[in-house]
Amino acid sequence: MSPINIEKKFSLFSDQWSPKTVALLNDCEIKLAKFEGEFVWHSHADTDELFLLKSGKLRILFRDGEVSLSPGEMLVVPRGVEHKPVTDGECEAIMISRQGEPNTGTAGGERTAAQGVWI
Amino acid sequence: MSPINIEKKFSLFSDQWSPKTVALLNDCEIKLAKFEGEFVWHSHADTDELFLLKSGKLRILFRDGEVSLSPGEMLVVPRGVEHKPVTDGECEAIMISRQGEPNTGTAGGERTAAQGVWI
Repeated sequence: MSPINIEKKFSLFSDQWSPKTVALLNDCEIKLAKFEGEFVWHSHADTDELFLLKSGKLRILFRDGEVSLSPGEMLVVPRGVEHKPVTDGECEAIMISRQGEPNTGTAGGERTAAQGVWI
Repeated sequence: MSPINIEKKFSLFSDQWSPKTVALLNDCEIKLAKFEGEFVWHSHADTDELFLLKSGKLRILFRDGEVSLSPGEMLVVPRGVEHKPVTDGECEAIMISRQGEPNTGTAGGERTAAQGVWI
């Protein structure tokens, strides 16, 4: 076992909206992702989803409001709740959800990223 | 829903070896803890345990070695693996394990902290 350095891991990739796996915990997957611009409306039927912001600013839109995250801030989006991540400029986030859950959840479509890409 | 500010949450308590819950994710619990000195040897039978260091230095001793964590570094201790956290000076850690799992795991004893204390 060796420590996972979050900053070093983020330095190893530049593609956006394409979460990379860094660890597993029980049936959950810990991923790192870079976002810029708008994602699609989606929800996750069977898993909550945690966002812990590392850098930048992340707005998570909901059908009835929005939450804005700064570095060091965290939000858990409950399963089944439609949301849409939006940023001004690039941001970096640590994400946790059930292993194998696609980034687009039940919405699917062309923004669906490859699963199980470790970094 | 509102953002959870990790630094603010850490400022709300000072007791050591007494993890505080800040969020749930599926059947996992996200906790914040302050450590200083030596903990007890223990393992968790049914859950992996994540440590993400926020400040200070944390050594996690294993029967066959040790891992040292600096801020921004993370380790997942697999279920069943005996470990013993040790620090020089105080450190702050974000921890994730299955909801309701005691900090002392199967070892129990007087260092067992109260469960489900939210902050």
